[in-house]
Parts: sequence; C-alpha cells; structure tokens
Amino acid sequence: MRITTVGLDADDTLWHNETLFRMTHARFVGLLEPHADAETLEARLAEAEKRNLRLYGYGVKGFTLSMIETALDITDGEVPTRVIREILAAGREMLNEPVEPLPGVETALARLSEKYRLVLITKGDLLHQEQKLAASGLGDLFAAVEIVSEKDRKTYETVFNRHGTGPEQAVMAGNSVKSDIIPALEAGAWAALVPYPLVWAHEAASAPHDHPRYRELATLADLPGWLEILTG
Amino acid sequence: MRITTVGLDADDTLWHNETLFRMTHARFVGLLEPHADAETLEARLAEAEKRNLRLYGYGVKGFTLSMIETALDITDGEVPTRVIREILAAGREMLNEPVEPLPGVETALARLSEKYRLVLITKGDLLHQEQKLAASGLGDLFAAVEIVSEKDRKTYETVFNRHGTGPEQAVMAGNSVKSDIIPALEAGAWAALVPYPLVWAHEAASAPHDHPRYRELATLADLPGWLEILTG
Repeated sequence: MRITTVGLDADDTLWHNETLFRMTHARFVGLLEPHADAETLEARLAEAEKRNLRLYGYGVKGFTLSMIETALDITDGEVPTRVIREILAAGREMLNEPVEPLPGVETALARLSEKYRLVLITKGDLLHQEQKLAASGLGDLFAAVEIVSEKDRKTYETVFNRHGTGPEQAVMAGNSVKSDIIPALEAGAWAALVPYPLVWAHEAASAPHDHPRYRELATLADLPGWLEILTG
Repeated sequence: MRITTVGLDADDTLWHNETLFRMTHARFVGLLEPHADAETLEARLAEAEKRNLRLYGYGVKGFTLSMIETALDITDGEVPTRVIREILAAGREMLNEPVEPLPGVETALARLSEKYRLVLITKGDLLHQEQKLAASGLGDLFAAVEIVSEKDRKTYETVFNRHGTGPEQAVMAGNSVKSDIIPALEAGAWAALVPYPLVWAHEAASAPHDHPRYRELATLADLPGWLEILTG
C-alpha cells in the first residue's frame, strides 16, 4: 500500500468546537428560560437550524441568525431586545474564542507531515475556519487547506486528486462518521475515525466497523502508527 | 504573449449584487425611519459593517447581523421585534434571490472557455457563492472555482499557479479596482476592469490607467477581443 496524502477534519478533530456550541446553547436557554423550558427551546432551535441549513450552511453566523429567529418565534415577538443583543454578543464571542489544539494533535501532525502531504478539509464559515487555523499555530504543517460547503464523495475525490495522488492513496481522519468516514470510503480513500466524546454516542451506530479500509482510533496520536502498518 | 488562464470575479461582474444590497439598505432605512433619518442610519450601518468585517467577513449573513446590531444600537434597544423579524426576512430573501447573468456575459464566457481555462475567483459566503454559480447556469464554463476570504497579491499567485500556468500567463477581469485589479497586477498578472455602474464613480480615481498590463473594458463582451490583441 502506498499512501501519499492525509486529509484531516478540523472542528473536534484538531481542536474543540462542539463544546463551544453546547456552551452557547446553554447560554441561549438561560436567556430564554422565562419564556419556555429548556427542552422546548432546544427543540425549536434545532428545527430552525435544520430549516436554515440550505440557506445559511454551517458555521457560527448562521447559528447566530437561527438563535435570533428562535428567540422571536418562541416568544411571539415578546422577547426583550436585551436578549437579542446578548445573542449577537454570544455569536461574536464564539468567533473570537481562542483556539487550542487538542492534546497530542501537534505532535501527531508534525510526525505525519514528514512523510505525507497534509490537507485540511473542513466545513463552516470560510473566514472563521482560516482564522482558527491561523490561531491554532498548525497552519504551517498543512500543504493545502480546503474549506468546503459539503463533505460528500465528490468532495473527497476532487480534493485528493487536486492535492494528492487520488483517493486510493489517501486517508481521511476525522470525528464524524457521516462527514469524514462514509463519503471518504465511498470515494475510494482510507478512513480513520477519531471520536470526540460529545458526538461519539450519537454517531457510533453507523460506523462501518467491517469496512476493509476503515479504522477507529482512540486519538489522532494513533494515526501515524496505523499508517505505518498500512504502508509497511 | 501567451495567456492560458482567465480569472473572473463574480458579484457585479457576472451578475448583479450591489443593486440587491442597495435595495436591502433602502428597506432597512424604511423600517427604522421612525427612529432616525436615512443619513444617520446609513452611516451607523456602514460603521457596524466595518467594525464586524474582521469577524464576519464578506457576505449576506454578516450583513444581516450588522443590520440587527445597528437597529438595536440606534434605537437604544427600543426597536420593535417586528423590525428584527423583517431584517431576518430581508437577509433570507437576499440569499434566495434568483441569479441572472448580466447581458453578454454568457456569450463572452462561452467564447473565452474555448481558448482559456476559466477560474471564478470571488469573496463572500462559501455556500451562497456556490449556490449563485449553480443558479446562474454558468458553472460548466469554469474549470475551477475559488471562493476566498481576501483578494490580495498572494491569493492571485496561489490561484493562478494552482489552476493555470502562473500569474504571468493569466488575466483577471472584475469590477473592483481594489480587489480585482491592483492585487492581480501586483501578482504579475494582466487585469481588465469591467466597471459596474453602481461602484464605478467611487473607485474610478484609483484605477492604474498607465499600467502596461491593465485595460478598462466597457463590458465583459470586450474581453475576448482584448485577449486576441494581447496574444496575437
């Protein structure tokens, strides 16, 4: 086996992201608690996010707009404008949040970058993802960065052909079975799941445990070792 | 001279965009007129957009958030929530707006695509720009699409090296002196300004009229002719 290229997801693979969204959810619920219970608020916010996904895509700006919309809807317009202001501030704070690589990530990437071409492949707001990569200090380890609107089979085909030697000689590593694993395998690449505690329970069921090009790893620090076995 | 690659800006070069922003500005002013005069509203909105640019980048979602922020600020929180709702709707309508290529664009691109590799190079929300390109029906004419967070010298170097044979054999066409012309010339590419009526007056002064690799064209339909002269 020859592997030339390693694709890496960003949010919740290289640094925390879901934690920050959950904290903002909690803040949103706290702000609107006088108007509705937590369960209703979470459900309505999830509906708004789903409804708006086609228009807003992934990222903090669309999430902020969905929070404002939910606050207006759930209170029938009776929400105090102070709350809208707080939601805007919460969104801005998410965009300003410092970025710290997860434990072991920097060492693993440094080791991988000696042998393979590293490509960051991520969804979300274009500018915000670029800023997070810059803030993380990991930017120099990547040969290329692809911020995409959707992660499907075609995305991985295009990216691994553009920046590597095709999907067959590439491995994708990330925390999402749905976005990082299944479509990368469909494209013909290898795929390593690096679960993130907060989403793992939710997505575990669908992991393709028996797929010959799939592997679940405990952390990203195990990726160089798996690749040595694969290519050695 | 050999030219292999033609970079094209999207908004206000291939289709209307500024017109839509101006219409939404007018709607915003109409909604808040009971609270402030048009001039103050426009000035405060422009300040908010400028202040938020570093965090939100370019595009409709950030513009919508800046309108909401301005509505809250200018009324000291006294804005009716109905107005916030209208601003959210205005943003969604911008994202849903049908996309029509400007007159002559389709024919010009079809002609150019026979001889050159066409690359779309644009700022804005990733998903929205992809959707506009799909809706325009022009997508198949492009060999590559680059949605970028900033258009500077380095952007053009990277894009023309990645998708062509370097900036020296590339020409960039667009309506903005600041984003499409100056940095493309700095990168070593050729550059054609195709003014859009609504911004032309504002940017005319800084056009590099005497630059040997620069040309101002009346419309995009004149680009194939200029390239024939250059390469012939």
